[in-house]
Amino acid sequence: MSTMDIAKKYVELCKTHQNQTIIETLFSPDVVSVEAAVPPGGASAEAKGVKAVAEKGKEWMANHEIHSAKVEGPWPHGDKFIVRFSYDVTNKPSGQRFAMEEAGLFTVAGDKIVREEFFYPMG
Amino acid sequence: MSTMDIAKKYVELCKTHQNQTIIETLFSPDVVSVEAAVPPGGASAEAKGVKAVAEKGKEWMANHEIHSAKVEGPWPHGDKFIVRFSYDVTNKPSGQRFAMEEAGLFTVAGDKIVREEFFYPMG
Repeated sequence: MSTMDIAKKYVELCKTHQNQTIIETLFSPDVVSVEAAVPPGGASAEAKGVKAVAEKGKEWMANHEIHSAKVEGPWPHGDKFIVRFSYDVTNKPSGQRFAMEEAGLFTVAGDKIVREEFFYPMG
Repeated sequence: MSTMDIAKKYVELCKTHQNQTIIETLFSPDVVSVEAAVPPGGASAEAKGVKAVAEKGKEWMANHEIHSAKVEGPWPHGDKFIVRFSYDVTNKPSGQRFAMEEAGLFTVAGDKIVREEFFYPMG
C-alpha cells in the first residue's frame, strides 16, 4: 500500500470515530506518539508502543466531551502524511470548553504508522 | 526567537503576499525546499539554497493566476511548524483552473527556516 492508501484509511476511520480499529489495523506495535507539549505532572511527551499509545487515547477520551470534530486531509509527501484536526471539546475535570486546533504528522513504514507527531501552539 | 515566533511571521507575510520579505528575512541561505512530486521535465523535487528557492517561487507565480488564497496555522512542534495552504488558481499555460490544497512542514534552526517540505496528493 502507498502512504496515501494508509493516510486515507486513517482519515476515514478518524471521521467515523473508529479509534480502536486505527490502533489494531494501522499502527505498528512499535509506534511512537509525540506531543508538542509535555503533559502536566511530568509525564513524557513521548508514548512508545501501541499499548501506551492506545492508553493515551483512552485517557484523553475519558477526560473530554467532544461536541464536534473535523478531520481534513490527508496531504502526503514520501513516507509521511499530514492531517488537520479541529475539535470543539469540554475538558471534563475543569469543565472548560475550548477549540482544539492541531495538525498531525504521520510516518509510514511497512504499511503501518510508525510515528505520529502532534503540532499545536502551547500555553 | 521561538519556532512559534518565526512561524507567525511566516504566516503573516504569506497572508499579505510578501514573498520577497519571507525569502530575505526568514530563510537561511542554505534553505532546502522539497516538493512531494517530482516536477515535469525531470527537474529535481529538491531546490537547494535561497536563490534556487526564490527562483522556484517566481516561476510558480509567473505560471499561475491566483484567484484566492487562504493560509491557516501555524501549528508548532519543537523546531518544526505546519501551515495549511488553500489556493484557487489558474495555470496560465494550460488555462486550467483548480483548487490547490497542501500543507507545508517547516524546520527552523538559528532563527531561520532551513527546510520546507510541501505535502499534497499526486496525480
